[in-house]
Amino acid sequence: MVKERLSRLRDAMEEAGIDCYLIPTSDYHDSEYVSSFFAVRKYFSGFTGSAGTLVVTKEEAALFTDGRYFIQAAKELEGTGIQLMKIGEPQVPTVKEYLEKVLGEGQALGFDGRVVQAKEAIAYEEMVKSKQGKIVWDKDLAEGIWQDRPHLPGSPVYILDECYCGESVEKKLKRVRKKMQEEGADVHILTTLDDIAWLFNLRGNDVDYCPVFLAYAVIRMDQAILFADKSEASLHLKENKVELCPYQAFYDFVASIKEEKVLVSVARVNYRLYKTLGTELEIIDKPNPTTWMKAVKNPKEMENIRKAHLRDGVAVTRFMYWLKTQVGKIPMTEVSAGEYLEQLRRGQEKFIEPSFGTICAYGANGAIIHYSAKPDFCAQIKPEGLLMVDSGGHYLDGSTDITRTFVLGEVTEEMKQHFTLVLRAMLHLANTRFLYGCRGSNLDIRAREVFWEQGLDYKHGTGHGVGYLLNVHEGPNSFRWKMEDGQPNSAVLEEGMVTTDEPGIYIEGSHGIRLENELLCRKGEKNGYGQFMYFEQLTWVPIDLDGVITEQLSDQERGWLNEYHKQTLEKLRPYFEGKELAWLEEATREI
Amino acid sequence: MVKERLSRLRDAMEEAGIDCYLIPTSDYHDSEYVSSFFAVRKYFSGFTGSAGTLVVTKEEAALFTDGRYFIQAAKELEGTGIQLMKIGEPQVPTVKEYLEKVLGEGQALGFDGRVVQAKEAIAYEEMVKSKQGKIVWDKDLAEGIWQDRPHLPGSPVYILDECYCGESVEKKLKRVRKKMQEEGADVHILTTLDDIAWLFNLRGNDVDYCPVFLAYAVIRMDQAILFADKSEASLHLKENKVELCPYQAFYDFVASIKEEKVLVSVARVNYRLYKTLGTELEIIDKPNPTTWMKAVKNPKEMENIRKAHLRDGVAVTRFMYWLKTQVGKIPMTEVSAGEYLEQLRRGQEKFIEPSFGTICAYGANGAIIHYSAKPDFCAQIKPEGLLMVDSGGHYLDGSTDITRTFVLGEVTEEMKQHFTLVLRAMLHLANTRFLYGCRGSNLDIRAREVFWEQGLDYKHGTGHGVGYLLNVHEGPNSFRWKMEDGQPNSAVLEEGMVTTDEPGIYIEGSHGIRLENELLCRKGEKNGYGQFMYFEQLTWVPIDLDGVITEQLSDQERGWLNEYHKQTLEKLRPYFEGKELAWLEEATREI
Repeated sequence: MVKERLSRLRDAMEEAGIDCYLIPTSDYHDSEYVSSFFAVRKYFSGFTGSAGTLVVTKEEAALFTDGRYFIQAAKELEGTGIQLMKIGEPQVPTVKEYLEKVLGEGQALGFDGRVVQAKEAIAYEEMVKSKQGKIVWDKDLAEGIWQDRPHLPGSPVYILDECYCGESVEKKLKRVRKKMQEEGADVHILTTLDDIAWLFNLRGNDVDYCPVFLAYAVIRMDQAILFADKSEASLHLKENKVELCPYQAFYDFVASIKEEKVLVSVARVNYRLYKTLGTELEIIDKPNPTTWMKAVKNPKEMENIRKAHLRDGVAVTRFMYWLKTQVGKIPMTEVSAGEYLEQLRRGQEKFIEPSFGTICAYGANGAIIHYSAKPDFCAQIKPEGLLMVDSGGHYLDGSTDITRTFVLGEVTEEMKQHFTLVLRAMLHLANTRFLYGCRGSNLDIRAREVFWEQGLDYKHGTGHGVGYLLNVHEGPNSFRWKMEDGQPNSAVLEEGMVTTDEPGIYIEGSHGIRLENELLCRKGEKNGYGQFMYFEQLTWVPIDLDGVITEQLSDQERGWLNEYHKQTLEKLRPYFEGKELAWLEEATREI
Repeated sequence: MVKERLSRLRDAMEEAGIDCYLIPTSDYHDSEYVSSFFAVRKYFSGFTGSAGTLVVTKEEAALFTDGRYFIQAAKELEGTGIQLMKIGEPQVPTVKEYLEKVLGEGQALGFDGRVVQAKEAIAYEEMVKSKQGKIVWDKDLAEGIWQDRPHLPGSPVYILDECYCGESVEKKLKRVRKKMQEEGADVHILTTLDDIAWLFNLRGNDVDYCPVFLAYAVIRMDQAILFADKSEASLHLKENKVELCPYQAFYDFVASIKEEKVLVSVARVNYRLYKTLGTELEIIDKPNPTTWMKAVKNPKEMENIRKAHLRDGVAVTRFMYWLKTQVGKIPMTEVSAGEYLEQLRRGQEKFIEPSFGTICAYGANGAIIHYSAKPDFCAQIKPEGLLMVDSGGHYLDGSTDITRTFVLGEVTEEMKQHFTLVLRAMLHLANTRFLYGCRGSNLDIRAREVFWEQGLDYKHGTGHGVGYLLNVHEGPNSFRWKMEDGQPNSAVLEEGMVTTDEPGIYIEGSHGIRLENELLCRKGEKNGYGQFMYFEQLTWVPIDLDGVITEQLSDQERGWLNEYHKQTLEKLRPYFEGKELAWLEEATREI
C-alpha cells in the first residue's frame, strides 16, 4: 500500500515539477501531535510514531526518526523500500545533509510551506540556491492523492474558569503587552496552539490528547484578535476585549500589517507565515512570551495540580493492586489492561481525557520506547516478567504523566538489577537541591550518573515539561544533557515549573523498565550562597518493591525511597480500605 | 595616593573631553594576565586582583570584580572613595548598566581602544548613540599621568622542540588552513598570545607566569606572517615558511587587507583592530581554530604532561613532608613557605617558572579566594589550623596547577567536616564517567552536588582548562554550571583536554579549604550507547588524611580515595627513601 502511495506521490511530483518532496510531522502550528488531517507522513510511509520526516525523490525514499522509534520504525518500514535514518547515530546524515546529497543541480525541492518550520526552510533556501535550484512551497501534494483524508478538525471550545487557571485573560494580555513593550514590539503574532489556549483561557479538542484548538492570534497594545472558527467563545472573548475572526482570514490579515515592529518567534512559525511577513517589516525574533509564562505555574495552578495528581495516583494505585493481585487469574492483554486503567481514571473527578496514548508494554515490548499496543496485535499479560505502563490524564485541575513498571512474577536477576538502577536514577534527580540559575542540562546527569558509571544509558531525555490541561510535552524546561552550539538551552528552572523525571532502560528482545514521577520546582532556603531550589514530588503511586534489590541501594537512596513511600501511604490512605489498604501498606513498607 | 591619581585622571579626562573613562584589566591581546605596562587599572585603583574593571566619572568611581576578589577588593579599596561593585550579586549593575546610568545625554565615553574587547565596545556604541553621545577610543590617558610606567615587554623567545610540543609549525598551519577553507576564509587574523605561541612553537617571557610574547599573526593560504620584535626566531620561522614583521607594523598591514574574507574571532580582538578592519570586508566571526586545537593535547604532549606532573608531585609532596614535620619547630610565614615550595620545584628537571603567583594562605586568609601574601604583610604559620597552598609550575614538558590544604595541628570539627566535604566533591567529579558530547556545564554538578545538598556553595567555577607550557587558565574547556542565553557553552570534552577539579569552601574570618587535581579527559569503553569518557588523574600528591572524617565518606568515596592514595604511593615511591618514604606510606595509608 505504501509503495503504491509513493508511486502516486512521485507522479504528482513529476507533474508539479518537484524532484524531491519533504513531509515532516507537523500541522500549520508547529505542534508535536497533530490531528489526523495532518498525518501525511504516516499516510505515505506507514510509520506511526509521533516524530519523523519523510523525504521522497524519484528514486529513493528515506524516513528520519529518533532513538525512541528505531525499533518500531524498522518494523513498520519493512517492505516499503523506505530507508530508515536513525537520527543521532554515527554516519547518519541530517535531513538537510540528505537533501543536499540527493538534490541535483537545478532541481526543485517541494513541500507544503504551512507544515515546514520557517527556520528549517530558510536553511534549505541557501542550500537550494547554491545548486541553482528552487523551492516549491505552495503545494500540498497529498491533496490530490489522499482520497479519504479527514477534514480539518472543528470541535467546540470551552472556557477554563479562573478557579482552575488562576489568572484572567486580561491580566495575561497585560503581561504579554509588557513584554512586547520591553522588546520594542508593536504587534505580536502567535501561532502555537498551546500558547493560544493558555493565553485566552480556552481549551478545545481539535487534536487527540491535546486540549487545544486550531487558531492564530495577533496582539497589539490596544487590540487582540483570535483567528478561530469558535463562535461559542465569542462572549468570553468580548468580555476580555478580544476580537474573534475566521481561522482562514489570518494570512490575509498578516499581509496587511505595515510599518510595525513584529514580535514573532521565527523558530516556531511556518514558512508560509514567514514569507507572508515579507522582508520589509522589522522582525523581533524572540521566543513567544507566553511559552515561559505558561510553564511557570501560578499558585492556584500549583494547588490544583497537587489535587489532580493525588486523584490520578489513586487511579493508578488501584490499577497496580488489580494488576498485582489478578494477573494469572483473569485474562489480560496490553490493550485490556490499558483500558482498565483508563476506566479507573474516568472514575475520578474532573477527568477529561487521557493526556496521551497509553503505553502498556509487556515483556520485550517494553524495550520499544514509545510502544503502542494494537487490539488485534498485542501481548497477553502473564504472571511473570515485567509490565511497563506509561500513561496520564487531563483533568480540569491539571495534566498528569506517570510511568510505573510492575513485576508480575518470576523475573531475572538482571531485570531486578536494572529496575534498581532506574529507581536510583529517578531518586537522585528528584532529591537534587540546586542553586537558582540551574537549567535541566545542568541537572540531567544526576539521573544519568548511575547509568554512565556502568557503561549504560537511555536514548531519550530524562524529562520534559508538562502543561496545565495542555500539552503533556511542554517547553521551555526539560532535563536533557545534550547541547548544540547555537541552539537555545533548556530554560532556567523556576518555581512553578513542572518537569518529568523518567529514566529507563531498554534491552531489545528482553525487557524495558521506566519509572516516571513529575517534579514541581520550588524555592528552598535562601542564604549567602544564593537561592536554593528543590523539587516537590507530584506523583504518588508505590514503586513496585518486588523489583528492588535493597542491597544495591545506598543508605541515602534507601532513605529517599522509604520517605517517598511513607508520604505516598499518608496521602493515599484516605482513599483505600480493607484488603486494598492492607496491600497498600505492604506495598509502601519501609525497606 | 589613589585619590591623587584619580584627581589627575579627571583633569586629563576634562582636557580630552571625556566624561566617563573606562579601564579594564587587559592588554592589546585580550590576555587574562598582563605585563606591568598594562597595569593601568591597578595604578588608578590600588586593587591588585587579576580581574576587574574601573569606571571613573567626574564625580564617582567604581570597581567591578568577581566573587574571587570580594574580600580582597573591599580591603584594598578602603579609603580610596572607589565603590566596590560585586559582579553577580543581586542589585549590582553590570559595567554596561552602570555606564548607562552615569553617562548623561550628549556625553563622551572614553577608553583606550586597544585594551577594550571589540564586542564590549560595540555594545557601548549603541548605548552611547541612544544618548546622542560619542566614544573617544584613541586615547590612553595613563600616558600623560603614569610617570614611571614600565616599558612594553621585549624578552627573547625560544623554540619549543617537537619532542616537547609533538607537532611541527607546518602541520599546525596546515590544520588551520584546512579549517579556514571549511569556513570559506581567505585570511585569518590571530591576536591572542597563547594561540600564537602554540601555533608557532615559540615561547616567551613577556608576561609574568605566562610563557607568551607580544605578537600578532596573519595567515593566508600561501602566507603566514608573525608580527613580533623577535628576530631570534627568524631562522625557525623561515624554515617553517613564516615571515617575520615588526610588532608595530600590524595595524597598517590590516588596513591594507582588501576584498578578502577574514576569519577573526570578534569576541577575542580589540576595538581598534575591529575599527581598522572597517565595514567593507566580509568578516567570518568564528572562534580561532587554534583555541580548540591547542586545548586537545596530542599524544606526545599527554605523555610529557604525565612526566611533568609526576616531578611536580614529588616537589609538592616533599613540601608537605617538610611542612607537616617542621611546623612549630622552625619559623615559617606564608611567604617563606611559598618560597620553599618554589625552591623545591626549581630543583626539578625542566622547570622554567611558577605557572602563577603562589597562593599560600594560612587560617582566615584561606577564605580570600585569590589571596596573595606580601613579604611585609603576611601571617606566621603555627602548628594549628589550616594552610591552603595553590601553586603550579611551567616545565618544558607541561604546566601544572595543584591545590592542597594542610592540617597543621588542632582544627575544629567544622573544619574537618568542610575538608571532608571538599574532598568528596573533588572525588565525585574526578571519578565521573560520561558519554562523549558532555560539556563541563553538564558535569559541574558532580562536584557541587554534595555542597548544594547542605545549602553550601563556592563562588567560582569547579575547574578551568590548563595550557601546555602556556596559560594556566586556558579555554574552551572548563567545569562551570552557569550558562547565559546567547553565550557560548563550555566546549565538548575531548580526549586530550586537561581541566582542573578544584572545589573549595571559604568561611570569612575563619578558614578556607580547597583541593585541586588536574584531570586528563580520556576515551573509555565504546558500546551501543556511544563513546564513554573518563578522567585520568594527572596530579599525584597525598590528600592530608588529618582533615578527613572517614565516617562521612560513603563506601564508594572511601574506595576512590584509597585508590588515589595507592596510586600516589606507587608513583612517588621511587623518589623517596628513609624517613620521608615511611612518612609517605603513612600519609597514603588505606582508611
